[in-house]
Amino acid sequence: MEFICDKNILSDGINTAQKAVMPKAALQILEGILIKAENSLTITGNSLEIGIVSNVEAEIVKTGSIVVNSRIFGEIIRKLPEGNVKIQVDELNNVIIECKNSHFKIKGIDSSGYPEIPEVEQDNKIVLTQNVLREMIKHTLFSVSIDDNRPVLTGVLIESESNRITFVAIDGFRMALRNFFSDQNYPEFSVIVPAKTLSEISKIIQPTDENIEIYVSKSQILFSTNNCKLVSKLIEGEFINYKNLLPEKFESNISIDRTELLSSIERVSLITSDGRRNPVKFDIKRNNLTLTTNTEIGNVREDIEIEVDGEKLSLGFNPKYFIDCLRVIEEEKITISFSSEIGPSIIKSGIDEYIYLILPIKIR
Amino acid sequence: MEFICDKNILSDGINTAQKAVMPKAALQILEGILIKAENSLTITGNSLEIGIVSNVEAEIVKTGSIVVNSRIFGEIIRKLPEGNVKIQVDELNNVIIECKNSHFKIKGIDSSGYPEIPEVEQDNKIVLTQNVLREMIKHTLFSVSIDDNRPVLTGVLIESESNRITFVAIDGFRMALRNFFSDQNYPEFSVIVPAKTLSEISKIIQPTDENIEIYVSKSQILFSTNNCKLVSKLIEGEFINYKNLLPEKFESNISIDRTELLSSIERVSLITSDGRRNPVKFDIKRNNLTLTTNTEIGNVREDIEIEVDGEKLSLGFNPKYFIDCLRVIEEEKITISFSSEIGPSIIKSGIDEYIYLILPIKIR
Repeated sequence: MEFICDKNILSDGINTAQKAVMPKAALQILEGILIKAENSLTITGNSLEIGIVSNVEAEIVKTGSIVVNSRIFGEIIRKLPEGNVKIQVDELNNVIIECKNSHFKIKGIDSSGYPEIPEVEQDNKIVLTQNVLREMIKHTLFSVSIDDNRPVLTGVLIESESNRITFVAIDGFRMALRNFFSDQNYPEFSVIVPAKTLSEISKIIQPTDENIEIYVSKSQILFSTNNCKLVSKLIEGEFINYKNLLPEKFESNISIDRTELLSSIERVSLITSDGRRNPVKFDIKRNNLTLTTNTEIGNVREDIEIEVDGEKLSLGFNPKYFIDCLRVIEEEKITISFSSEIGPSIIKSGIDEYIYLILPIKIR
Repeated sequence: MEFICDKNILSDGINTAQKAVMPKAALQILEGILIKAENSLTITGNSLEIGIVSNVEAEIVKTGSIVVNSRIFGEIIRKLPEGNVKIQVDELNNVIIECKNSHFKIKGIDSSGYPEIPEVEQDNKIVLTQNVLREMIKHTLFSVSIDDNRPVLTGVLIESESNRITFVAIDGFRMALRNFFSDQNYPEFSVIVPAKTLSEISKIIQPTDENIEIYVSKSQILFSTNNCKLVSKLIEGEFINYKNLLPEKFESNISIDRTELLSSIERVSLITSDGRRNPVKFDIKRNNLTLTTNTEIGNVREDIEIEVDGEKLSLGFNPKYFIDCLRVIEEEKITISFSSEIGPSIIKSGIDEYIYLILPIKIR
């Protein structure tokens, strides 16, 4: 194998593929990336859960393939002087890296043992802009459960139907639901994607209006951009029927400044180390929301002007659940709807676009 | 006690004093900062090794003092809305913090148990600009020893004599020496300052030509700026006679581009996890320096153009010791003098300003 490539382009390609590599993999070969020079140059990382293939622009002198340690190879390429780098593999699987006055020779591994990334059937396809996908992940991913006892809740439900795509994440105390409405029709499917997969894809995609294609099969999902493909296993099982969780009636609706509420809750939470044991009390009165809490450190009161439509109400919340949501919304004026002192409350943003549900905590 | 103060000014004052506070102090009161409102407002942090007093501009309504938990108080003030904050202490030592619609009440501690910061006699005084002090610390601090078996080497020697101030740090394998020459005369003294003290003072001082006054007594050192005072214990004992370490004759002197050498050594060190076990070999030939190393990961060769005055030479070095020094020098063209294959080598920058000595490692 032999190819010549710009150092920065190669480095970017390694960075992308590397996101699938586990730093301490069970098999040594999985700590490596597969470099394959055929008609074009590709770099592959694979954790068996997630596989990423990045395409790299290069002049291929001699076809072939090799596996190299991802971290060491990546660091060497990143530290090379600017310009073209020549990569060769000798008959003993040594990888020779030459760039200006730098000459490296590092041990490679025969590529025949590197696991294949599964093919994903291309029947169920949806297309989104990278911007939209980024936002949908940002609005939901933080709400997935970290409790491995209910594996389905450790992923995000992606549901596609007629002109709507919906992302849903539920962790037992809250739910984040993000809709995207299109003028085209999507195929009908419903799959659960591991949190890590969405976390990695959101690092790979850019804040642009370029498209990303998503293909879904029975057990795999494929994200495909111009530069790379990411294939991931899906989580098997039945997701919670999230539609049943949304309350139909609300005792009180308030309109409030998002940044002001966020700052107040962040301050209140400074003296509550454990938000479940020390909930923040919300007192909704005419034109005024008062937040209070009382812990061993001291007590705090925050007053915020609001517009109220409905009844006076007192409820307790884990401040963390409010903070997480208020940090990802962009709108400055938001509506919060409280169903009752024990029923779920809802924060909405956009027209049916984003719905965030929080369960209150009983105040002693 | 009661005072009114701009939130950001108060926050800055807390940040400075906090640098002396140990997060997990032996006594609870040492996790606090002392707030004292008399003619002016001061905030004090004290670890018993280092004490910092910062002056804060405030309108004092009622004199008094209190100790509050440094981390919690600091976070609350930092998160308050912009504007003035009012701080009061009630008869139960509660600290009441009020700023716009935020009202905090946190538990304080009676200040009578807070340890005093020792007075430092003002006989031996030197004055430097903050810029010069920053640079002298930056050039030497990284070379102090982390081996507690020789306490004197865990600090930086500060020597003052006629028109010269010298900082010296030695860790057994290398020495960093920084001179500052003035047109005034300084008092004569020689003290050893703990690394942590210089590390904290370098975070407090600014990149300006404003002065900082340094006072030295038998067992304490005081750094004093317009806004704050830092008092630290000195390390007792006799420092190494560093002047004896400097070689008088050199077999070879080379002139080399600093950035190029730094990049090459950084690359070489990517495949040497332990620089003492895997030294980098320097081969000095006519107009050329070749760096090579060979480890279980692979091997590397870097060629750099140089100007040589002297003999051909081959030596081994721990790459880390070169990298540390080359990162803090600003000059682009530097001179390295090699005394012999086993004697110390020296990097110089400026006219007698900075001398960095490294011992070579025998190559097998």
